[in-house]
Amino acid sequence: MKIEVTQANLSRALAMMSRVASTKTELPILTNVLVATNEGGVTLSATNLEVAVTHFASAKISTQGKVAVPARLFHDFISQLPKDETISLVLEKNKLVITAGSYSSHIQSVQAEDFPALPQIASQQEVSIANEDLSRNLTKTVLAASHDETRPILGGVYVHSFNKKLYFVATDGYRLAEAEVTPIDFDVSAVVPAQALQEVLKMSQDGEEATSTLSFGDGQFAVSAGNTQLVSRLVDGTYPEYRKLIPETSEISFEINKTEFQTAAKLAGLFARESGGSITISASEDEQTVTIASVASQVGDNKSAVASKVKGSGDVVLNVRYLNDALNCFEGDEVSFRFGDSIAPCVLSSKKQPGYQHIVMPLKS
Amino acid sequence: MKIEVTQANLSRALAMMSRVASTKTELPILTNVLVATNEGGVTLSATNLEVAVTHFASAKISTQGKVAVPARLFHDFISQLPKDETISLVLEKNKLVITAGSYSSHIQSVQAEDFPALPQIASQQEVSIANEDLSRNLTKTVLAASHDETRPILGGVYVHSFNKKLYFVATDGYRLAEAEVTPIDFDVSAVVPAQALQEVLKMSQDGEEATSTLSFGDGQFAVSAGNTQLVSRLVDGTYPEYRKLIPETSEISFEINKTEFQTAAKLAGLFARESGGSITISASEDEQTVTIASVASQVGDNKSAVASKVKGSGDVVLNVRYLNDALNCFEGDEVSFRFGDSIAPCVLSSKKQPGYQHIVMPLKS
Repeated sequence: MKIEVTQANLSRALAMMSRVASTKTELPILTNVLVATNEGGVTLSATNLEVAVTHFASAKISTQGKVAVPARLFHDFISQLPKDETISLVLEKNKLVITAGSYSSHIQSVQAEDFPALPQIASQQEVSIANEDLSRNLTKTVLAASHDETRPILGGVYVHSFNKKLYFVATDGYRLAEAEVTPIDFDVSAVVPAQALQEVLKMSQDGEEATSTLSFGDGQFAVSAGNTQLVSRLVDGTYPEYRKLIPETSEISFEINKTEFQTAAKLAGLFARESGGSITISASEDEQTVTIASVASQVGDNKSAVASKVKGSGDVVLNVRYLNDALNCFEGDEVSFRFGDSIAPCVLSSKKQPGYQHIVMPLKS
Repeated sequence: MKIEVTQANLSRALAMMSRVASTKTELPILTNVLVATNEGGVTLSATNLEVAVTHFASAKISTQGKVAVPARLFHDFISQLPKDETISLVLEKNKLVITAGSYSSHIQSVQAEDFPALPQIASQQEVSIANEDLSRNLTKTVLAASHDETRPILGGVYVHSFNKKLYFVATDGYRLAEAEVTPIDFDVSAVVPAQALQEVLKMSQDGEEATSTLSFGDGQFAVSAGNTQLVSRLVDGTYPEYRKLIPETSEISFEINKTEFQTAAKLAGLFARESGGSITISASEDEQTVTIASVASQVGDNKSAVASKVKGSGDVVLNVRYLNDALNCFEGDEVSFRFGDSIAPCVLSSKKQPGYQHIVMPLKS
């Protein structure tokens, strides 16, 4: 193998490879990136068996070939090189010789033949999404996925169709985020691991392409954007019927300035450390005011009153961390907040973001 | 006590107080900030017994008084409030009532009388320094102070006079940084704890004042800038006679482009992980080239050749971390590097920064 490639092209591709390549040493081969020449360029691949990514970069090919080298080290080396360098990669015996101007290195390689076959998706159905929409909707949903490994189904994002629209939904049992993403003309129901979608999020933000194509196959999910493809296995199992849990209407509701609500929540959070983040939100229709309060017996207490458009009166106790996370998902100046008795879910939404809602379960007060 | 103060004034002062206030619970009183009214304003104070800071902030005083409250919580609360708010502080029984617009809080206070007396420096000698110079010279020296608590003297910066000039020096035994700071007309020899100087560094960078005054008293050191004063105890003991350790001349020297040297050092560092950061620098007078190389037996190796003005030829083995730290202390495009046999110290300097030198001890190769 003997090729020349620009630092910019190689560095960007390797950033993704080094994130996806496994860091676990049980399967050492997976810590590598596979570099293989093609017509007019080079294909880089990495996988951790759950997620696989491939990227084709333009390159000048003098001699065809392929090699696997440690992804992290290869990325760290290339990313330190000057941005305007052309990099030469030559396979000499079992070492990859990297030369860029006066900088050079030999990296011990492993047999490319030992690298596992990458999953291919037999795509049955595809939908295209503007990367701007993909990025915005992933950001606002994937944060709600669970990190609890005992319930793997909640560690995924539920990517599904409903009434001819594609939705992303994630929940950890304490809060839930639902985004209506785009019209769709086929039925789909897939639970995609959050880690794979975190990588898709980076692809949609870093890439130069305007759109991505989502593909759904048997037990697999793929995203393609330009020269980059990601394939992920799906999470086994049936996603909870979450729609039943979201109340259609609530007894109490208010429209509130987002910044003031955020400030009040952060202040309350300072006094909620010993109570595990528990703060009380009280709506008063008479006073057209929302009060956010918390108490720390040894330390002090806190109360903020924010003038709001309030319908109905009542209290609810929430975990301040989930409230802060939820408020960060809204872009406009105003947020709508509705709730019922002390155990009914709280629903946050915004007129500026139709199709998006964020649910926070109350704490028992 | 009843006062009004702007969020901006109070927040800036509390940032410093919360950094200096102790976080150790053996002396709980020291986790507090003392707030005491004066003529035309309020004085805030915090100490961890090693370092004490006081700051006077303009305020509208309705009722005189003083109180001690938890520094971290008070700072976190005030810093979250909107920047344009006026904050009211009222002592009611044993609680400090904080009100700003619609935000309010009660913080449990402790008796101000329990707060320890702050150290006063009986200043004998003073020198003024432009904050720009103070900041630049502290940044480039304090990093070399030791974190090894078994040799407390090396955990300080040696602030001393020599030939009518003030010097800052720090060393951890592996590298040493020396900066000539300003002319001085008295003799001084003080070892100031690095933590105190880290705080002085922030004072000199964040403050609005153009100059600071350094004062030296019996076993104490103080820095005053505008309304802020820091007092620190000195480290007991005699600083090593470091000047003897710096060779006046070296057999081998080169002038090198700093950016290329940094890139080469970072690349070499990637292959130096298993050897504890050990890289080899080789100067060749014949080739007018400096080569930076490292080897990781299982992983690969690395070599960079940088064209330089070289006098003499030879090799030296260094810890790449200390080399990187040293190179970051230089501002210009070129760095001078001189060394001798394998155990003579390496000396880095720059024509752009007369009065500053950084020494790195070689590793035994």
